[in-house]
Amino acid sequence: MAVRVTMADVARAAGVSTATVSYVLSGKRAVAGGTRKAVEAAIAELGFTVNTAARSLRTGRSSIVALVVPDLANPFYAQLAASLREELRPLGLHVMVCDTKADRDEERAYLREAVQQRFAGVVITPFRLTAKDFLLLSEAGIPAVVSADLPFGETDLVTPDARAAMRAALTEVTGAGRRRIAMIAGPRDATGGDPRLELLRALAVQFGLSLPGRLVVRGEHTREAGAAGFAHLMGVKHRPDAVFCANDAVAIGAMDKAEELGVGIPGDVALIGHDDASFASLVRPRLTTVRYSAVDVGRAAARLLVERLDGRVTRRTVRVKAEFVPRETV
Amino acid sequence: MAVRVTMADVARAAGVSTATVSYVLSGKRAVAGGTRKAVEAAIAELGFTVNTAARSLRTGRSSIVALVVPDLANPFYAQLAASLREELRPLGLHVMVCDTKADRDEERAYLREAVQQRFAGVVITPFRLTAKDFLLLSEAGIPAVVSADLPFGETDLVTPDARAAMRAALTEVTGAGRRRIAMIAGPRDATGGDPRLELLRALAVQFGLSLPGRLVVRGEHTREAGAAGFAHLMGVKHRPDAVFCANDAVAIGAMDKAEELGVGIPGDVALIGHDDASFASLVRPRLTTVRYSAVDVGRAAARLLVERLDGRVTRRTVRVKAEFVPRETV
Repeated sequence: MAVRVTMADVARAAGVSTATVSYVLSGKRAVAGGTRKAVEAAIAELGFTVNTAARSLRTGRSSIVALVVPDLANPFYAQLAASLREELRPLGLHVMVCDTKADRDEERAYLREAVQQRFAGVVITPFRLTAKDFLLLSEAGIPAVVSADLPFGETDLVTPDARAAMRAALTEVTGAGRRRIAMIAGPRDATGGDPRLELLRALAVQFGLSLPGRLVVRGEHTREAGAAGFAHLMGVKHRPDAVFCANDAVAIGAMDKAEELGVGIPGDVALIGHDDASFASLVRPRLTTVRYSAVDVGRAAARLLVERLDGRVTRRTVRVKAEFVPRETV
Repeated sequence: MAVRVTMADVARAAGVSTATVSYVLSGKRAVAGGTRKAVEAAIAELGFTVNTAARSLRTGRSSIVALVVPDLANPFYAQLAASLREELRPLGLHVMVCDTKADRDEERAYLREAVQQRFAGVVITPFRLTAKDFLLLSEAGIPAVVSADLPFGETDLVTPDARAAMRAALTEVTGAGRRRIAMIAGPRDATGGDPRLELLRALAVQFGLSLPGRLVVRGEHTREAGAAGFAHLMGVKHRPDAVFCANDAVAIGAMDKAEELGVGIPGDVALIGHDDASFASLVRPRLTTVRYSAVDVGRAAARLLVERLDGRVTRRTVRVKAEFVPRETV
């Protein structure tokens, strides 16, 4: 992408004023649809990039931002990719998505690629990396934003604030007379825990509930793991009457299994998902869940990345509020 | 990724014979799980690549293969990405996914990136490109594989063979006494048509059915377009009793709208999807569809790409057979 292209070149190609180009780029003033399209076409045609990206390009970097995720089959990450793309595209940055299948070697391979190809930046949901793995990037001066429950060293962090939403979920569950809660949790991360499980455990105490080890199942963040976890929970003595799930894919797997076993949802067992993935409202009954907006995560990550490209050096954390979404499974 | 790493280096690091490394890479003989893991770890650690990739690297190319798709929110493409990744990973090639939102400027921007960054190859489902746009790649010597219904110039092609599956769908539909078929088709592609619509039209004649223009709605390949299209079809005189959909997302949108309008599926109207996306079996009633296996497409595309990297110069087409999947909506 040519660095020498200026806003004036874009204006000339689009047949508009430089100010109009600037308005289209900044979004600070409304620009008529046809004019906007002409400017966007000229930007694309000429490969124009605004300062932020241009600065990174002058340092020899590519205009690629890698989004590294553990499972592209989970629509949360497709939404995150779309959101990130929408934010970064006007800056001339191109998002490319890398699916690691939560495999540590793959995660590291993509970090290496980012360094070797001098990517403009990395946005990553690490699964099996440790803070040390990120040194590779910081040494190469490539900004990284982590989207996760916990920080990784000195990288910027976008993280959920799900406390209020989970409290609302527990209020709904206990209000429906449920007392025996269980969880189909995710795999242990690099720190050995699952923050969603730990949050549920901490809040349960406040509701006078217990979450004994025998009512906690662990698995991957997949539909298959949800089915297996639910089958196990239905086999224990004093089986649970409310099951919290690590994410919506896990909850859908639990619903599959409930149907197979003839267990009524929510008649016999209430089910609570997490994320509000696109299919949460698709299944019947519609899944009650805790929404963690991938769009908001993408926006926050883009902002943090652009700030770094603009020269910020201190570490930042952005908390994205989750929201309880009552539907039909409690 | 270092090119100088040899199979012998990998063997030494993994504490196995060179032959064992070769078996792991080729899959020609079974290798015990632990041994396989050790070899794979050594491959990842040393950044070893087999000849195919090494050859491209020696020519100054990166190990990145770009998968360029129109809509990452469609699980078909997430599956395609996973399949492609699985095939190319043992060769030391890294798949990165680019979402164009079916936008021509974006499609061209990624082709330009591929050239500028000297990617190892491109696998693409083009939406608004023409054959001419691919010259950029062929001039740079970057192999491209198109996954689409129609060829684009001299690029290799992976394309569906859905004739038998669609015939089976029509047999099922007419067997259920339906005569008034309609289609919620996709947008016009670069050639001005929608091959799935044209196939249905051609086959309908063989079944003594007609598919008049008033019973064909066009839209994007989205749930929203499906809902809008279905609403329109329910408003026409002599409304259809069977609706074929451009893909499963469109069919799910039609189901949403049917529920809203109180139209029974399949009682009042039969519904047929396309692709067998992950959510096709998730909805109730389960969606009858035509399966086009993203896994098979990914395998075929990987094979074609590797052949090109190995030096093949003549154009090839691989046809992937679609399959009728009867469930509960006819």
